[in-house]
Amino acid sequence: MNKNKLTTREENYSDWYLDVIKAADLAETSIVRGCMIIKPYGYSIWENIKDELDKEFKRTGHKNAYFPLFIPLSLLSREADHVKGFAKECAVVTHHRLIESKDGKIIVDPEAELEEPLIVRPTSETIMYESYSKWISSWRDLPIMINQWNNVVRWELRTRPFIRTAEFLWQEGHTAHSTFEEADKEARTMLGVYRDFVEKKLAIPVIAGNKSENEKFAGALTTYTIEAMLQDGKALQAGTSHNLGQNFAKAFDIKFTDKDSEIKYVWQTSWGMSTRVIGALIMSHSDDNGLVLPPNIAPIQVVVIPIWKDNNKDEIVTKANEILKMLKENNELRIEIDDNDYESPGFKFNKWEKKGVPIRIEMGSRDIENSSVTLVRRDTLEKIIVKISDLSSEISNLLVSIQDSLYNNAMKRLTTNTVEVKDYDEFKKTVGTKDDSGHSFVKAFWCEGKSCEEKIKEETKATTRCLPLDSKEMEGKCIHCGEIAKHKWIFAVSY
Amino acid sequence: MNKNKLTTREENYSDWYLDVIKAADLAETSIVRGCMIIKPYGYSIWENIKDELDKEFKRTGHKNAYFPLFIPLSLLSREADHVKGFAKECAVVTHHRLIESKDGKIIVDPEAELEEPLIVRPTSETIMYESYSKWISSWRDLPIMINQWNNVVRWELRTRPFIRTAEFLWQEGHTAHSTFEEADKEARTMLGVYRDFVEKKLAIPVIAGNKSENEKFAGALTTYTIEAMLQDGKALQAGTSHNLGQNFAKAFDIKFTDKDSEIKYVWQTSWGMSTRVIGALIMSHSDDNGLVLPPNIAPIQVVVIPIWKDNNKDEIVTKANEILKMLKENNELRIEIDDNDYESPGFKFNKWEKKGVPIRIEMGSRDIENSSVTLVRRDTLEKIIVKISDLSSEISNLLVSIQDSLYNNAMKRLTTNTVEVKDYDEFKKTVGTKDDSGHSFVKAFWCEGKSCEEKIKEETKATTRCLPLDSKEMEGKCIHCGEIAKHKWIFAVSY
Repeated sequence: MNKNKLTTREENYSDWYLDVIKAADLAETSIVRGCMIIKPYGYSIWENIKDELDKEFKRTGHKNAYFPLFIPLSLLSREADHVKGFAKECAVVTHHRLIESKDGKIIVDPEAELEEPLIVRPTSETIMYESYSKWISSWRDLPIMINQWNNVVRWELRTRPFIRTAEFLWQEGHTAHSTFEEADKEARTMLGVYRDFVEKKLAIPVIAGNKSENEKFAGALTTYTIEAMLQDGKALQAGTSHNLGQNFAKAFDIKFTDKDSEIKYVWQTSWGMSTRVIGALIMSHSDDNGLVLPPNIAPIQVVVIPIWKDNNKDEIVTKANEILKMLKENNELRIEIDDNDYESPGFKFNKWEKKGVPIRIEMGSRDIENSSVTLVRRDTLEKIIVKISDLSSEISNLLVSIQDSLYNNAMKRLTTNTVEVKDYDEFKKTVGTKDDSGHSFVKAFWCEGKSCEEKIKEETKATTRCLPLDSKEMEGKCIHCGEIAKHKWIFAVSY
Repeated sequence: MNKNKLTTREENYSDWYLDVIKAADLAETSIVRGCMIIKPYGYSIWENIKDELDKEFKRTGHKNAYFPLFIPLSLLSREADHVKGFAKECAVVTHHRLIESKDGKIIVDPEAELEEPLIVRPTSETIMYESYSKWISSWRDLPIMINQWNNVVRWELRTRPFIRTAEFLWQEGHTAHSTFEEADKEARTMLGVYRDFVEKKLAIPVIAGNKSENEKFAGALTTYTIEAMLQDGKALQAGTSHNLGQNFAKAFDIKFTDKDSEIKYVWQTSWGMSTRVIGALIMSHSDDNGLVLPPNIAPIQVVVIPIWKDNNKDEIVTKANEILKMLKENNELRIEIDDNDYESPGFKFNKWEKKGVPIRIEMGSRDIENSSVTLVRRDTLEKIIVKISDLSSEISNLLVSIQDSLYNNAMKRLTTNTVEVKDYDEFKKTVGTKDDSGHSFVKAFWCEGKSCEEKIKEETKATTRCLPLDSKEMEGKCIHCGEIAKHKWIFAVSY
């Protein structure tokens, strides 16, 4: 991008996304293949996400713990579907020491090979459930409701900041229950927690539903998902919750003596949300001027920019700080002032616009004379002159209004671009354009056969995203093979 | 240990430590060599530690970020002292894929070898400073004040839960400044943050000082440390802060144009505190009945245990919940009730004692008749009958009193067992006993020569812990070689 101008969405959507991240100083690529550096401003968004989710996890009865980063190869291999699902993307530790070679270079010590290779966790089912099998023996030990916040590694070939990186940060919840019903309720409850969070805090409407057999988590019975639509009409899986059934319980021999004295396998769930949701956040609301953040998650909700002349800097900056203090106290805002004297007001406006701060307060001499300030909302760039006496209530109202407006716009996009189609020709035309510039979600009957699903993917790049939770059984014909189909699924090209 | 009784400190101090951890359900060893599982109760202590420290880091101007887990071998090797310091304990990733072998086993794919081995970070100086060199070009880019909360791996041979594990959790702060003075001030400020935290929240008095050349961090100019004395008289380094000088700046070419237009290398610091501080916490206050936690860090400060008979369970449990609610509202306590009906009151008393909860409230029929409850303080096991009307203020006072008392006891231990010695014979006798059951800190003149330091270590197991910050230059003779010595150093056998 050139110094002040981002690539527009129309020019090149992918470059626009990278430009938004760079202009807001959220993250950058590192010298380690596929791994990104999350810079302070980007990380503060993740901190807010963590705080909000962690509160909800604890409210719903979960506790945090920490399990090892490494998983012995034999342990990862114990559940057959699971290891197959992750085999292609495993980082493997094979040695535990470096030495100086004869020519003075530091090399891996060939003598220090591990007896068994260790896999850097791509997810923690296996390492955790090995412990669960020791911890659980009676119905009194159930349910186990544990979450961990950690880093995982999946060696991805094509990476994109936040959306898909070799290492990423996430949380993974892992629970064990005495009945199928309880486990399934837990998996749905946690999907509900994700849905509420994404809709209410990130202002991203989602479609919640079940994944197809082919798209579900490696080792799960059922995977529940929330799917967001980004501005290019592509889908992004924003969070998943798995009813694992007894697959892992059997592989790891996790049994308990029930109240009726019978020995039974436990029923399990796991669920996760990662830094990828920041990718969804960026692509949901941002515009050609850069990042746009919803107030409920923005690290800085309001920025105050005093505008002084040579003779009145002290007066204006003092007044600006008074307003900052008042707003902090009255509104419990995340607010900052930008009063550095090496950047011009225009430069500052632009800088904070690119960082997506929801409201900018501009304060110059004329404003102060009129006991007013100028508010600029980031989403619409609308300017509003407000009396200082009304400022607290105006800011409160405006933050709510911005949050609602972002959600409503995204909802409008999702509704408008989710299209029911009557035949496969229309399907192909609707789900994506050849030049990849615009897509839609398609709602269509599908026979639930693996072969149709695979062919549709081959022919259109679109995958089944989910069967919406509120779907009713109907009579129809598969969009691809014409055989009997009972449900309309959501298809889309996805990230 | 047998079911209810822990190994005592006198019987076997090391076993006692492991028993305390097990009885409190803080952590356990995992099947991965040297890696532990931090269980929910142990992790909740770490969460409190993180919250308190993070608040302080932000108050002192730092922001959190996240850098990759992996460091390319060539990058780790760029600062010569640094890589030598960590070479023996590096976990090395060499492959990025698994495949199914001909006999159906999952193996490491020999075709998927990385071009360059990746080291799982033992610390992040190198990976971070590679970025700093790109981020910094002008004095306006300084200072950089970044912290990260993450996991690091140091392949240790002899491990002990919390104290020394192959993987551990910590924070590492990394700052860059324009002058030596500013960097040194930062390193000292952060040592002060650690010291305040450990003394005020963990109730552990420490000696703050400089490390010797030999004991300082690999690549640092000066290492500042806080050293705690545990109950066996051994030392534990609870936190360190390094003035890195320009060593890394030169290795990573981190330069800036100063206000005077000259191009200069930056001055840097790094500082860290890890889960090992939980080991110090456990060994500072616990007794032969199990864990003892200071109220300021305890995940549960008060536990309410209703004691009912067959005919009055509802009444007692209702009353107990009323008291719980009142205390929560009045005192902003971390408080829980234990009203399960499958454990006896005696079993519950014992259970919460082993978990180190500072105050237990017992409530039976007679208590309620008298409008009173029985408080039991964990540190002294003293019982106190309190009128319910006085309960809020009594609890507040008692929590302060327990916190102070734990600190004062630990301070008494530190003072009593820090001994000035007149000759090397006395040094040897004082610093440790042959059977390893009791040790002292020794304060003695040392010539600051590497050879004396090494011989003392060989002959007594004691190392230089630090030169206390408030030390004045004096005239004396080295305890080992008799040559001129200017300072009295603290020596101790350490963890």
